[in-house]
Amino acid sequence: MTEPLELFFAPQGVAIIGASSDPTKLSHGVVRNLTACGYPGPIYPVNPKGGEILNLKVYPTIETVPDPVDLAVIMIPALYVPDTLRSCGERGLRAVIVITGGFREAGPEGAALEAELKTIADHYGMRLIGPNCVGVMDTHLPLDTTFISAMPQPGHIGFVSHSGAIAGGTVDWARSVGVGYSRIASLGNQVDVDIADGIRMMASDPETRVINVYAEGLPNGRRFVEAASEVFRQKPIVMLKAGLTSSGTRAVASHTGALAGNEQAYLAACRRAGVLVVDSLQAQNDIAIALASQPLPEGNRVAMLTNAGGPAALAADELDRWGLTMADLAPETIEQLKTVTPRGAQLGNPVDMLGGPQADMYSAAGRLLLQDPNVDMLMAIFVPQAITPVNEVADHVIAAAEGAAKPVVCCLVGGESITDAVRKLNRSGVPFYQDPNRAGRALGGLWAYRHLRHRPETQPREITDVDHAAARAHLADAWSRSGAGFLDAQLSAQIAAAYGIPVPPSGIAASTEDAVALAGSLGYPVAMKLIAPGIVHKADVGGVRLGLLDASSVRSAFSELIAGYENAQAFIQRMAPRGQEVILGLQADEQFGPVLMFGMGGTLVEALRDVAFRLAPIDTEDARSMLAETAAGRILQGIRGMKAGDIEAVIEVLRRVGQLALDFPCINGLDINPLIVGEAGHGVWAVDVRVSLGGEPG
Amino acid sequence: MTEPLELFFAPQGVAIIGASSDPTKLSHGVVRNLTACGYPGPIYPVNPKGGEILNLKVYPTIETVPDPVDLAVIMIPALYVPDTLRSCGERGLRAVIVITGGFREAGPEGAALEAELKTIADHYGMRLIGPNCVGVMDTHLPLDTTFISAMPQPGHIGFVSHSGAIAGGTVDWARSVGVGYSRIASLGNQVDVDIADGIRMMASDPETRVINVYAEGLPNGRRFVEAASEVFRQKPIVMLKAGLTSSGTRAVASHTGALAGNEQAYLAACRRAGVLVVDSLQAQNDIAIALASQPLPEGNRVAMLTNAGGPAALAADELDRWGLTMADLAPETIEQLKTVTPRGAQLGNPVDMLGGPQADMYSAAGRLLLQDPNVDMLMAIFVPQAITPVNEVADHVIAAAEGAAKPVVCCLVGGESITDAVRKLNRSGVPFYQDPNRAGRALGGLWAYRHLRHRPETQPREITDVDHAAARAHLADAWSRSGAGFLDAQLSAQIAAAYGIPVPPSGIAASTEDAVALAGSLGYPVAMKLIAPGIVHKADVGGVRLGLLDASSVRSAFSELIAGYENAQAFIQRMAPRGQEVILGLQADEQFGPVLMFGMGGTLVEALRDVAFRLAPIDTEDARSMLAETAAGRILQGIRGMKAGDIEAVIEVLRRVGQLALDFPCINGLDINPLIVGEAGHGVWAVDVRVSLGGEPG
Repeated sequence: MTEPLELFFAPQGVAIIGASSDPTKLSHGVVRNLTACGYPGPIYPVNPKGGEILNLKVYPTIETVPDPVDLAVIMIPALYVPDTLRSCGERGLRAVIVITGGFREAGPEGAALEAELKTIADHYGMRLIGPNCVGVMDTHLPLDTTFISAMPQPGHIGFVSHSGAIAGGTVDWARSVGVGYSRIASLGNQVDVDIADGIRMMASDPETRVINVYAEGLPNGRRFVEAASEVFRQKPIVMLKAGLTSSGTRAVASHTGALAGNEQAYLAACRRAGVLVVDSLQAQNDIAIALASQPLPEGNRVAMLTNAGGPAALAADELDRWGLTMADLAPETIEQLKTVTPRGAQLGNPVDMLGGPQADMYSAAGRLLLQDPNVDMLMAIFVPQAITPVNEVADHVIAAAEGAAKPVVCCLVGGESITDAVRKLNRSGVPFYQDPNRAGRALGGLWAYRHLRHRPETQPREITDVDHAAARAHLADAWSRSGAGFLDAQLSAQIAAAYGIPVPPSGIAASTEDAVALAGSLGYPVAMKLIAPGIVHKADVGGVRLGLLDASSVRSAFSELIAGYENAQAFIQRMAPRGQEVILGLQADEQFGPVLMFGMGGTLVEALRDVAFRLAPIDTEDARSMLAETAAGRILQGIRGMKAGDIEAVIEVLRRVGQLALDFPCINGLDINPLIVGEAGHGVWAVDVRVSLGGEPG
Repeated sequence: MTEPLELFFAPQGVAIIGASSDPTKLSHGVVRNLTACGYPGPIYPVNPKGGEILNLKVYPTIETVPDPVDLAVIMIPALYVPDTLRSCGERGLRAVIVITGGFREAGPEGAALEAELKTIADHYGMRLIGPNCVGVMDTHLPLDTTFISAMPQPGHIGFVSHSGAIAGGTVDWARSVGVGYSRIASLGNQVDVDIADGIRMMASDPETRVINVYAEGLPNGRRFVEAASEVFRQKPIVMLKAGLTSSGTRAVASHTGALAGNEQAYLAACRRAGVLVVDSLQAQNDIAIALASQPLPEGNRVAMLTNAGGPAALAADELDRWGLTMADLAPETIEQLKTVTPRGAQLGNPVDMLGGPQADMYSAAGRLLLQDPNVDMLMAIFVPQAITPVNEVADHVIAAAEGAAKPVVCCLVGGESITDAVRKLNRSGVPFYQDPNRAGRALGGLWAYRHLRHRPETQPREITDVDHAAARAHLADAWSRSGAGFLDAQLSAQIAAAYGIPVPPSGIAASTEDAVALAGSLGYPVAMKLIAPGIVHKADVGGVRLGLLDASSVRSAFSELIAGYENAQAFIQRMAPRGQEVILGLQADEQFGPVLMFGMGGTLVEALRDVAFRLAPIDTEDARSMLAETAAGRILQGIRGMKAGDIEAVIEVLRRVGQLALDFPCINGLDINPLIVGEAGHGVWAVDVRVSLGGEPG
């Protein structure tokens, strides 16, 4: 039996429930589009009024629709959808698209109605796209269940769109520039089929070479990460999410009620998921067009062939931002170029053929550049002028690209004169860009994806030499005493210690004599920190004493510290050796689960904002790359006058915190600030650990 | 007498020297364009062959051309240009455009030829645009001295382009979308008329409301800063420079030989100049279109009117990046919106009218939003669908904007269906954007320019309580001893001290007994630093001893320090009090002159890269804003558990270093690292000053 998700794009027959005979109605548009697109299976309009629509017999109910039918498109008022969905289930359908709006986005009643849809779908084992969507397209079958004006030409970009409007606008744009798509799925409220399913539906389609995802929220973030992680090495995923900033979140929230995730957690998730993150529709399409049509580059060296220096320089600036570089052409290439370029042409890189080259120079010189072993990619740039016909230039760029195993993109700086050339290029599989920076970005996207595809597998190994029971007991103890919130320093340190994170010996003293005895047993010098109800940031209230050398200083420090506080105690800890101070944190994200943080520590952490994030758990290599993203990590590698720090020990702590997060979802935050890092081989010390509990330990 | 620069755009008669009767020649194209554009004055083709071109009499030489003629366009082979230019001078012309290429960009011989042009032009008091350019356009006169296919429609964007190709491509684009321009000047090699002149030519044009500048290099950076500083409060300047990165520099260099400036110096110069910096042609045009047609916003609150939530959320994310925010609509506005929007519309902000609003709702709701006192700007968004005609939507957005004193921009997410609506919007003065982020960026540009226009005047006051003679003597001393390069710590400290920068007392000792005596006279504790030939970074070789408390420690430190070095000495300095360590630097930039730097100091400066830059000299307010850009500066304001630092004293040092740079252009670098900052009111100490000398003190 066909997997239900596959039925959305390869149904044997489609019923349109609520189809109208009124040509101004959207539900009529769906019948028209499905008919006009050339869908090869039977089409069944369903409407109690009966009759005919566009020469198709109208069936009064879904029950009366004959076989084969395995996809229903529902376009009736929201209130009636649940009953109709039930009928679909009874009729044996396993794939349903609910285009109708007025559910979750319309308020609490709509949300209840939407929940009912999910219950019904689950009951019958149906998969459901929507509600509040525009349906799906497959340009190759072909199939068009939307009321959008027409399909784009067949191509290799798959598009999973939260928003129906964005899907519609994209189709309109694609048709104007000749960009092809394979499948488009507008998912709407995602009561059942979500972004993760959408990615899988594109992944299984042989015509789809790149997957564009537009999301307004990722309520089940971990599912998205899983699906993308499975897919990204086969097919690139280019991800755009609206609502990252506070303004954007507000704009999204008023629309779909989707919860927008914290930006850092989102970026950490995308990193894990192996997706390319973009921040605009234009960037998404620019990169997708290249990924859908070009081979991946073997290296980062770009050759440019142009009739103007300015655009080449702009493109080169963009290349630099993506880690690409201008190729050093082989001397033989330069020799050969002399024979196929105008006199006076600049034969460095860019190869600048000056104002008026002949069109065929673009194929001749382009082929030479693509043959150069020092060149990994080619950008052809042409600024239309009076002499050289732009359409012929396009033809010759296409000819140069033909059969090349290296990516070629084309930038035409213009508007009025290039309309035909643009369509010609896109249809022939040479991506066109109007702006040099955008052409540079497209090559950058290819290179970035190549990196993603070849990056080592992230394989966080489970850490088993931990005292799970002890950690659990401490957490349960904390929960029973004070419920959710911050644990005190001693409990926090004990939990860290149970997971093999080095913490200096410590204890809690409630009296001066306790303090002296405890300090003696821990060993001098010691640090002392105030524990008093309501005090979290001890340093802010002068509640920290460091480097106490003997009993008498412990005695006086204790009295000073607790003065003025009721029920105050002191956390006393043996001083750690000196070293670099870093911060290491954990934060549970609602959508993506636990997120690890690393960066410059001490009191300056907020001011410096020198931090990197990853989803937990983490493997050694990923932890290493995380360190490398920060100044704190670069300093640990040893800079002027300072020895390298114990990076391996830091990585080990990151891994252990990740394991702790995995084992105890009840922990919603953990800060080690500072983690003191000794020289390489000398270990680390977590001198201030704060655990925050979000729920009851399971 | 008309200022010569004005003649380029308002000549009484134009001679085209080298005009060809062959319609395939560019020099024919110039005559054709000048004729076809409707230029009201006489046009004189000049060619020894004589005859007629396009029914115009051809004159054999410029000498034979009758009055009035006050602009010549030269299009003859490079070798003959100098003689012809001389003839133009003799003929009394004061404005000449040399379109011909083959000068500096073609190598040393071309460069010599180009220098000759400058000499000739100066001799006759002529202003010269080019060589190697495409000339100028004025759509209002009208005047077109280029061979580009045709002019854009009359409008209010002025464009100063280094590159002729970029100018041509821009015109082609502008014609396709209906964007209007006032003047376009392609400057080419800028042997005489440069970007600064270009800015002034646009500033004096009443039709020009915004000035776009495209530069590939700014060889006389300070002239650019001066011109832009004079203009930017009257007219916004939007600046794009190619060749900022190493790849981009390479691409530019191989084209025009222009020196690309250091990116930080460029950005500091643009800040001083009051220009908006963009990084692509598209961004430049997006922002310029809005600046040319819209009033400036009074505040940063944006209302969005849309038929789809997704694009609004994307635009809102972009707004956030520019410091704009989603407006909180007044309750009355929301009430009134109910009467002019579809049932079910989301009346928060964005106002989401859902899939199929009527077109006239865009004018009705748009007007209500523009009347709301809580709204400073309006973005109208429409995603074309089957029901609402996009052209009518455009009409109603235009109607809403009419007479509004607040900016309105329009985003249509589409392609095929919107072509006419796009031209309609642009021509009616409502800027159109295809991508929501681009619409957001346009509003961001308006807001950013408003900030620039209203920022306080930068008025670095001269600092006179300095010992100029002493500084000069120290510099001369250094120059006579070792020429260019780093000065030793003692000389550097003395120069700083001469300019009123607080340095702890210090001296140099060559023997152990000297060291002990010196330390005693300075006062303990002292720091000791190795001075040995070839050692610049003392800390790297263990050449620093801090906190020496008495004679015996000075004695042993001295022996250890100099051991193994020939001719070694010790720089001994009284220890400064403790405080936050910042870095303060000065670097002379080839294009923009001295640049000041401030940031996080100590050994981590390279790793943290927490630095801000400004052109020197600097005034108090600008210095304050410079501090605020860095974490170091934010920390000085006082963060958790730390008191505020002496910010006023830091600012004073920045001002004094700026004055020093101004007084002594021979200084090409100065580092104070660290400058130790005490608590507010407790002053600062420059404990390690290094001055680098670039030339002989004047």
